[in-house]
Amino acid sequence: MNRRDFLSLGAMALVAPVRAFGAAAPGLDSLIDDLVAANHVLTTENILDGYGHVSVRSPQNPARFFLSRSLAPESVAAADILEYGLDGEPIDAKGRRSYLERFIHSEIYRARADVSAIVHCHTPSLIPFGVTKKPLRPMYHQSAFLAAGVPVFDIRNAAGMTNMLVETPALGRALARILADKPVVLMRGHGAVVVADTIPNVVGRAIYLDLNARIQLQAIELGGPITEVSPEEARKYAESDNYSRAWELWKKKAK
Amino acid sequence: MNRRDFLSLGAMALVAPVRAFGAAAPGLDSLIDDLVAANHVLTTENILDGYGHVSVRSPQNPARFFLSRSLAPESVAAADILEYGLDGEPIDAKGRRSYLERFIHSEIYRARADVSAIVHCHTPSLIPFGVTKKPLRPMYHQSAFLAAGVPVFDIRNAAGMTNMLVETPALGRALARILADKPVVLMRGHGAVVVADTIPNVVGRAIYLDLNARIQLQAIELGGPITEVSPEEARKYAESDNYSRAWELWKKKAK
Amino acid sequence: MNRRDFLSLGAMALVAPVRAFGAAAPGLDSLIDDLVAANHVLTTENILDGYGHVSVRSPQNPARFFLSRSLAPESVAAADILEYGLDGEPIDAKGRRSYLERFIHSEIYRARADVSAIVHCHTPSLIPFGVTKKPLRPMYHQSAFLAAGVPVFDIRNAAGMTNMLVETPALGRALARILADKPVVLMRGHGAVVVADTIPNVVGRAIYLDLNARIQLQAIELGGPITEVSPEEARKYAESDNYSRAWELWKKKAK
Amino acid sequence: MNRRDFLSLGAMALVAPVRAFGAAAPGLDSLIDDLVAANHVLTTENILDGYGHVSVRSPQNPARFFLSRSLAPESVAAADILEYGLDGEPIDAKGRRSYLERFIHSEIYRARADVSAIVHCHTPSLIPFGVTKKPLRPMYHQSAFLAAGVPVFDIRNAAGMTNMLVETPALGRALARILADKPVVLMRGHGAVVVADTIPNVVGRAIYLDLNARIQLQAIELGGPITEVSPEEARKYAESDNYSRAWELWKKKAK
Repeated sequence: MNRRDFLSLGAMALVAPVRAFGAAAPGLDSLIDDLVAANHVLTTENILDGYGHVSVRSPQNPARFFLSRSLAPESVAAADILEYGLDGEPIDAKGRRSYLERFIHSEIYRARADVSAIVHCHTPSLIPFGVTKKPLRPMYHQSAFLAAGVPVFDIRNAAGMTNMLVETPALGRALARILADKPVVLMRGHGAVVVADTIPNVVGRAIYLDLNARIQLQAIELGGPITEVSPEEARKYAESDNYSRAWELWKKKAK
Repeated sequence: MNRRDFLSLGAMALVAPVRAFGAAAPGLDSLIDDLVAANHVLTTENILDGYGHVSVRSPQNPARFFLSRSLAPESVAAADILEYGLDGEPIDAKGRRSYLERFIHSEIYRARADVSAIVHCHTPSLIPFGVTKKPLRPMYHQSAFLAAGVPVFDIRNAAGMTNMLVETPALGRALARILADKPVVLMRGHGAVVVADTIPNVVGRAIYLDLNARIQLQAIELGGPITEVSPEEARKYAESDNYSRAWELWKKKAK
Repeated sequence: MNRRDFLSLGAMALVAPVRAFGAAAPGLDSLIDDLVAANHVLTTENILDGYGHVSVRSPQNPARFFLSRSLAPESVAAADILEYGLDGEPIDAKGRRSYLERFIHSEIYRARADVSAIVHCHTPSLIPFGVTKKPLRPMYHQSAFLAAGVPVFDIRNAAGMTNMLVETPALGRALARILADKPVVLMRGHGAVVVADTIPNVVGRAIYLDLNARIQLQAIELGGPITEVSPEEARKYAESDNYSRAWELWKKKAK
Repeated sequence: MNRRDFLSLGAMALVAPVRAFGAAAPGLDSLIDDLVAANHVLTTENILDGYGHVSVRSPQNPARFFLSRSLAPESVAAADILEYGLDGEPIDAKGRRSYLERFIHSEIYRARADVSAIVHCHTPSLIPFGVTKKPLRPMYHQSAFLAAGVPVFDIRNAAGMTNMLVETPALGRALARILADKPVVLMRGHGAVVVADTIPNVVGRAIYLDLNARIQLQAIELGGPITEVSPEEARKYAESDNYSRAWELWKKKAK
């Protein structure tokens, strides 16, 4: 974890007093609506099934984030959203069970001040790239954000033989360390974590990450060298890179 | 077949008197509802098509189990469920045809006291692993239960040239012997059998078995060594391993 | 073409006088209903898209068969069905266009007295087996009927450079000659023809042919030798081989 | 660009005076309806997702074409269609944003007098053929139009490191030069452009292009030499090659 980020987040938390979720926050209702929509979109687009989760950092307090209680994403409604601190514990659990792996979110928010939305998924197309040595590489502009490289987190290296779940703050920190400053980290024998600055962007990244994995497998099957998107092309594309047009469409489809 | 299991089941049958199906049994109606739902879920999730079946052991009499009459799983309703003995014959056939391969169920229930739910399927992703020498191995936590190994039953070894159907008690016993204490057995040129302790768990295992097969094929296509879930990881994961969250979702989708 | 079959069909035609389609034929309406359903089922199951066709031999006159006018299969209704002679010409065209490739049907009905239903399709999974030297082989019991072998018809061998369509009786005869006594013939760079004794069986064979092709490709990708269904297993399985259970389900899904 | 085509188009523009879109043009309304339908069909058939576009040349003025404002294709309605000149600029923008890559359309219409409809897509099956050296070849009659060869446009060769988007007339011209007189050009790390004489034909080509890519990948996976559709077969097939039958079906499905 980056100590400075943590300290600066702590400082921001002091100046941005925590409010009751949903109270005097004009934009918060629509953010929660977007978080609920993200749960449904990611299921409709086959990124999540009955498992996996998506969260968003609180705009009012960077040391807080919103995440559903433990529930299949397709079933998540606004009333299921809880507020969490950077220790991964709910501010008010309201008697509800939390996802075991909420520390994926808490520790990445702590380490990455630039991240405001996180998806944790077990998308089948991604697993093969986590269990082999073949690196996931950007095949086209829509997944150009992968040009920075996609690290693989093997929980065995961090903690030996486990139940494979990131269910402690220490494991969350180990994962955040491997993610470093990248947009995606694969988890060996488990899935992936995708991060971005907004909900539409993290959803879009998760969707095009899945497409990229399927495309890259096919390119490998064709045989011979592959021309990847170069880091410089990716950097230039990133300036126009956002998924706002598709976001409206995805939400419509998920309804 | 394990002789001791058979004897102990026989003893249990003596103390748990057989009741008329559906009569004074408070939990039985909901178990039958779950069995009907399992038929529909397995079709919706593309594990079964017009063929294959799912059964559950009677909670009142371990020497009995419930299975639909011969019918496409998608069409199964509560009135189609018959009760069977461990000889694979219906207690009361009510003039209806039974599945030819009901002996898969009867002989596994006889041999495995720990098993209370069984799926027999012809899922396309599984056939390639039954007709080649490539063993099915656990690619991720959600299919970690495969770490014990997935044996392959070749009916030719048991009975030479047949019509490939497990349509006698002797063939059912031969299959149960290859299954041994594992959760899954592949059938060469035919399909698979999945066993578990509950209906939601056998359905979940069948669904993640299919996903695992598709993921493993892709990992093999990527080339190079594959890091599998280790037996110890699988053992630790098994403690939190159940599909109850997804089960509610699958049932909703299948409606 | 088998000369004797042709002669015997001719003789049968003499004793079975041709009636006006739909007139005094009690079973004919339900046969036409099944032919319409077959068009819809084959589209729903992704065997046909906007092209391809399915026909049935007249039960009243073996020298006649029923086939839709030129129309996308999904749109076929009873009023679109025309009656054809073994010359591939409609008895009464009613001013409607016929499929260009109706001679696939006429010449196979002429050559194969045992065939009463035919599907011509361009199913994508089948094309790779027609353009390479890899023979299509039976992977499991549900496609055991392939054990007799799947010949490939290359129109270039029959007629040199053509528009690739079987649009003359001579090309239909050349195709029927390669089909010989088999249930399936692949057409290089084009598709396949499937034959059977009934509409449910020809539809079932087309559906499991497609599944078998997809399964065999995956078995090849796994690598190593493949244990196929043996001709003797296929012969024994054939005795219980029919798709009546699934047929009801497919019709329900296609509605 | 072919200088003569440009000049002749210019001349035609002079004799075909530009009318207000939708005014005294009897066939124009139905052309716009078809363009809207093409947007929906291409989404339903998974050729386009939230991105990509389809255009049609004005029948009244060959120096004009119709294209939606910047919008996900699934959401396009008649009111979203704008008229553009061959400079890629809207005649009347009505305050709406244009697609950044509209110059793909303008420069191809300028260079190709025979082209009246264009699709730009990012279809996943096509990307692998753009990033490897494996040429896309015609596997069956329905994609025989590929026999002329499928060139690959690498924007790096035209302009070095870019954001990969064809967002200037110069890049559109570079792309049109690589397309030359072919029906399809792949774009490395990006997608493809498909051209034809009518909307149904460009949609049909895009759909069968996608199918051909998936079929060819499978044929390569089977191994060994592949018998492609020959240029002469393709030429003969082209005489009967049109997608009018499927077009009605696709429109029905997209509704």
